[in-house]
Amino acid sequence: MQFNRKDLIGLEELTAEEITLILDTADSFKEISERPIKKVPALRGKTIVNLFFEPSTRTRISFELAEKRLSADTVNFSNSTSSVLKGETLRDTAENIEAMKIDIVVMRHSSSGACRFLSEFLDASIINAGDGQHEHPTQALLDMLTLRQRWGTLEGKKVTIIGDIMHSRVARSNIWGLTKMGAEVTVCGPSTMVPVEVEKLGEGGVRVAHDLRKAIAEADAINILRIQLERQKVRLFPSLLEYFEVFGISSNVLEEAPENCIVMHPGPMNRGVEISQEVADGDRAVILEQVTNGVAVRMAALFLIAGGKIEESELS
Amino acid sequence: MQFNRKDLIGLEELTAEEITLILDTADSFKEISERPIKKVPALRGKTIVNLFFEPSTRTRISFELAEKRLSADTVNFSNSTSSVLKGETLRDTAENIEAMKIDIVVMRHSSSGACRFLSEFLDASIINAGDGQHEHPTQALLDMLTLRQRWGTLEGKKVTIIGDIMHSRVARSNIWGLTKMGAEVTVCGPSTMVPVEVEKLGEGGVRVAHDLRKAIAEADAINILRIQLERQKVRLFPSLLEYFEVFGISSNVLEEAPENCIVMHPGPMNRGVEISQEVADGDRAVILEQVTNGVAVRMAALFLIAGGKIEESELS
Amino acid sequence: MQFNRKDLIGLEELTAEEITLILDTADSFKEISERPIKKVPALRGKTIVNLFFEPSTRTRISFELAEKRLSADTVNFSNSTSSVLKGETLRDTAENIEAMKIDIVVMRHSSSGACRFLSEFLDASIINAGDGQHEHPTQALLDMLTLRQRWGTLEGKKVTIIGDIMHSRVARSNIWGLTKMGAEVTVCGPSTMVPVEVEKLGEGGVRVAHDLRKAIAEADAINILRIQLERQKVRLFPSLLEYFEVFGISSNVLEEAPENCIVMHPGPMNRGVEISQEVADGDRAVILEQVTNGVAVRMAALFLIAGGKIEESELS
Repeated sequence: MQFNRKDLIGLEELTAEEITLILDTADSFKEISERPIKKVPALRGKTIVNLFFEPSTRTRISFELAEKRLSADTVNFSNSTSSVLKGETLRDTAENIEAMKIDIVVMRHSSSGACRFLSEFLDASIINAGDGQHEHPTQALLDMLTLRQRWGTLEGKKVTIIGDIMHSRVARSNIWGLTKMGAEVTVCGPSTMVPVEVEKLGEGGVRVAHDLRKAIAEADAINILRIQLERQKVRLFPSLLEYFEVFGISSNVLEEAPENCIVMHPGPMNRGVEISQEVADGDRAVILEQVTNGVAVRMAALFLIAGGKIEESELS
Repeated sequence: MQFNRKDLIGLEELTAEEITLILDTADSFKEISERPIKKVPALRGKTIVNLFFEPSTRTRISFELAEKRLSADTVNFSNSTSSVLKGETLRDTAENIEAMKIDIVVMRHSSSGACRFLSEFLDASIINAGDGQHEHPTQALLDMLTLRQRWGTLEGKKVTIIGDIMHSRVARSNIWGLTKMGAEVTVCGPSTMVPVEVEKLGEGGVRVAHDLRKAIAEADAINILRIQLERQKVRLFPSLLEYFEVFGISSNVLEEAPENCIVMHPGPMNRGVEISQEVADGDRAVILEQVTNGVAVRMAALFLIAGGKIEESELS
Repeated sequence: MQFNRKDLIGLEELTAEEITLILDTADSFKEISERPIKKVPALRGKTIVNLFFEPSTRTRISFELAEKRLSADTVNFSNSTSSVLKGETLRDTAENIEAMKIDIVVMRHSSSGACRFLSEFLDASIINAGDGQHEHPTQALLDMLTLRQRWGTLEGKKVTIIGDIMHSRVARSNIWGLTKMGAEVTVCGPSTMVPVEVEKLGEGGVRVAHDLRKAIAEADAINILRIQLERQKVRLFPSLLEYFEVFGISSNVLEEAPENCIVMHPGPMNRGVEISQEVADGDRAVILEQVTNGVAVRMAALFLIAGGKIEESELS
């Protein structure tokens, strides 16, 4: 099976089959990063631009490593040192970059919809590395890959997403991805952080819980969102300490969840705010597995978007 | 023919033969960026430092892509994260970088003459990526390549450059290049933006026009300069709207030009200031062709400066 | 002989044999940077992250060139564009980067001890590129390589380090390295800049001199530290001019030193503050040789830390 899309903008538009193809491809790529020589020639001579209009460490590095392990040529662009300062439109920036014969643009932007907007003008492929409060598809894919590696399947599993649902592109992508793959999603957070009509999101909808302990009582996994203070224009809760007391995941709270419940966090963590030290470093956390899977998922997305089919020759 | 210069500082010192060699080489390199594998081994193991003391998106990315498509090893340096903060002299920075056995330094600097100054101290080659109000030779070369591809020759053609001639290194390089290649150049802009004695610039001089409609009446091409608000210490015209009304290129204004007149802009564009939306996206604009040619021209400059001769083996 | 350490944190913990191994390896690598094709496949497919929490030009570029000349895949991270902005702990940042299957982290940080702290948590190797006022081992190694190339040996040689000893990681690493290799070290600076008990540093201790002319009277080499105004919270001397008058190295001062005395400076230089123009550009200065040796020393450190043994096949 081949991936027949030019772009990867969000999980909302992908089918379960397409998601499965990406996860299967990621599984087969994961081993490359364990080799002494972590490199395959699959994308040699392809040009990829990482166009980051928001600061990022891990997502940018993860993509850049994925690109280099596939032997692509990569160029980084970040806001601070660029001529966006000079007032050019996003479309002009993108069209200019495309005119340099770029194959793939990996883009992060503070505006929801910026990636889709550009994808309509460009022949180059766009991979969304996070756009505003819309989607962050590779994050959700790596979350799902991590769960699938543990469980074998996502079908019928219960996942609770906790925190600032309203501002979270991670939550939205997870909701779309998980529900398409047959998982049941519950969201839980302060009422000021849960968008109205969130129940209707995803394939078949999600459950909303306002009581944290009830929300996790039957969860097979919980995904703890980062409190993104830098994105909030107004304070949505009285203080960080109070947030921790009501919605923070401590060992104590975690006792309400089933024994095998997995703890995820997309990072970077605010230890002591949305997650306690103990939980972050505890047995149930798969947070570093998520990071490892991130490189594999991004290799898979880049490879498939570039039109690749996995063949033995590409992997050696 | 080989290019026998250590540096590419400006078009003022190049002969018509040297300019032709660069354009011919660029023509033969252009096709590399259209291949599925956009890469030739011509500069493998050469080290190139992109030393950008001013912010830049497109020029830096264009050079970096050119370098990577020639298989060079590239290192980026930009002002904001560097020890120039620590008060070191430019010469010391450059000599230190050279001591690391760099082959080519691609440099942008806010001071006119900074590239020539350094070239006298360094054995490494310097390519000027824009120095103050002096020259931006690869920009003019890509403009000329774009015109030559349309016309076959530059000889006898009429090119009008419009805008802030005084602050523009793009204008100066175009004037030198075009007049050496036998084109006739007219410059046009607000009188506060046209330097005194500009008529004497270039090989054989240029014509100055203050009336926009007369300036373009016989033009085979017009090159619309960016209004660089960030470079002007004092305001040289009352408002952006008034600039557009008098010197902006709209469809209406363009009717005064010959039917086949080509519209160029070095980017980034201020839409609605020096160029209207309609003209920017219109049939006559070759603005994205310029960008595409930019990579080819920079590949050619890097290749020739590195002592290359085009042979079949280099291109495969 | 193989280098059996996971990390290179400081010269304090290295033996004379280990230091000799790094210098010998650097000697054999130096020639690679003189070749037309400056590249060997020794670290192909290895992943190196340059994690710079402080601004740096030369050290970062020097490491990056060393990495590329060994064919490693490199990713740069600098503070300004990163999610450290988002308040993540250093340990989380590092563990996340490691989870992406990094082989070596080259790290600069403003906190003394940051590299050692991380090295205890990570399986990836850490090379200290300067941590606070603690150590800057590759700088001292390149200083020693430069001296050894001149003298054949460091045994019994007299080296005087002049300047802000207290804030200098370069001084500390040089003291450890030189004394272990059998050289005699004298330190000299304003009394506010010489730490108490400095005499006890290094293998066998160092001599402290407060009179500059006496300090250099028998020196085979002097190493002039940079006055790091950006690191000092309070002014430790009345003015730059007064510093130059008392502790600056001018031609005049240099007459007090033996005729063959070598002048070193780790750069970037404050000309006219700690070193005069004449001395900086004079016959005795080996400052650019130091820079050239820097790339070779870093290639050696990376290669040995990655578990390499020099074999003919690696060098061609």
